[in-house]
Amino acid sequence: MSRGLLIVLEGGDSVGKTTQSRFLDRWLASHGVDHMMTREPGGTPLGSRIRTLLLDPASGTLDDRAEALLYAADKAQHVTEVMRPALERGQLVVCDRYIDSTLAYQGAGRVLDAAQIDALARWATDGLRPDLTVLLDADPAETTATIVDKDRMESESLDFHRRVRDEFLALAARDPQHYLVLPARDPRDRIAAAVRERLAPMLGIDTGSDLSDPDGTMRS
Amino acid sequence: MSRGLLIVLEGGDSVGKTTQSRFLDRWLASHGVDHMMTREPGGTPLGSRIRTLLLDPASGTLDDRAEALLYAADKAQHVTEVMRPALERGQLVVCDRYIDSTLAYQGAGRVLDAAQIDALARWATDGLRPDLTVLLDADPAETTATIVDKDRMESESLDFHRRVRDEFLALAARDPQHYLVLPARDPRDRIAAAVRERLAPMLGIDTGSDLSDPDGTMRS
Repeated sequence: MSRGLLIVLEGGDSVGKTTQSRFLDRWLASHGVDHMMTREPGGTPLGSRIRTLLLDPASGTLDDRAEALLYAADKAQHVTEVMRPALERGQLVVCDRYIDSTLAYQGAGRVLDAAQIDALARWATDGLRPDLTVLLDADPAETTATIVDKDRMESESLDFHRRVRDEFLALAARDPQHYLVLPARDPRDRIAAAVRERLAPMLGIDTGSDLSDPDGTMRS
Repeated sequence: MSRGLLIVLEGGDSVGKTTQSRFLDRWLASHGVDHMMTREPGGTPLGSRIRTLLLDPASGTLDDRAEALLYAADKAQHVTEVMRPALERGQLVVCDRYIDSTLAYQGAGRVLDAAQIDALARWATDGLRPDLTVLLDADPAETTATIVDKDRMESESLDFHRRVRDEFLALAARDPQHYLVLPARDPRDRIAAAVRERLAPMLGIDTGSDLSDPDGTMRS
């Protein structure tokens, strides 16, 4: 079997990535697609420990470079231990956040040099790029403001989250054939349907059977 | 007061860095030199947690790049939080391991691309270089073999530790005015005296007063 596909879900905090990821998981399963759901940071045992360091408000003032390097370390372990082996087995891999989050949060958000953050992320992932990135786009004034019990990243300023959003959109604009940008405020079923519509031809799936089912989880 | 000096102790495992660091601490104190003793990995609260991840044999098979990135994250935090502020206060900083350890262990030891590891370490440390590196050199066959309860790095093969040693020596050979290379098998008092002799003129210290005192800790 040929190499599997890497599908990435990106976007700011609270844009609905987890919900869409659950819909996608069920739809892929209902069509018998051999797949794996994973996430960054935290997709490996090492990554979980790094994730704790990164998001724990008790970690205090993390140096910007240290933060970028910890995210990169998580990526390197995740690519080697989880994603590349799955892709080589021919599995479809759905990853919640990947390189674009590093470029948006550590590059644009922290205002570190974009070219250096890009080189860092590419080196860490040994050049593994997504086949499709689904970007759920929203105005951070409407999303992050609603979060209670914020983690360290979510507690950043609105200005920070606006730079993050702009960077996500800029990345998508530079490489449109590898992106699907959807308004995160759309009804979640409509978003799920748009994702399925884009993925179906890549997977050789006939979506006709999903039409009567807004979640796409029941096969006729 | 002008910027303080950064003095680094480097070398393989069990070459006596801790002992020399203790001698140096006492000698600097006896001459009233405002200084700070620190180490990598682990010189900050974040670094201590990273150090645990890195050296714990339970971390299992760390990806080589993930390992290099974790060491780099420790460095970034250490430079920003501890070393640069101390140097700016005019303190002399003595650090047990620094960039050369990354180049030797992650570059030469793991056989990652040397230029990329070098760029990574320079970026992480924002260009902060030691004023003097004391390299304690030893044949790893005579040192690492004697360690009991080895940590994850110490458990590497003799061949790995030979590449590490060769890289340390190569780094010193390329920039001799910033290195003092000493045979780690020499008596520890002789090593300590050689370090003091090299440092004294940099600090405006008259070592005549240390002559009758092999540890250099008593002032006449």
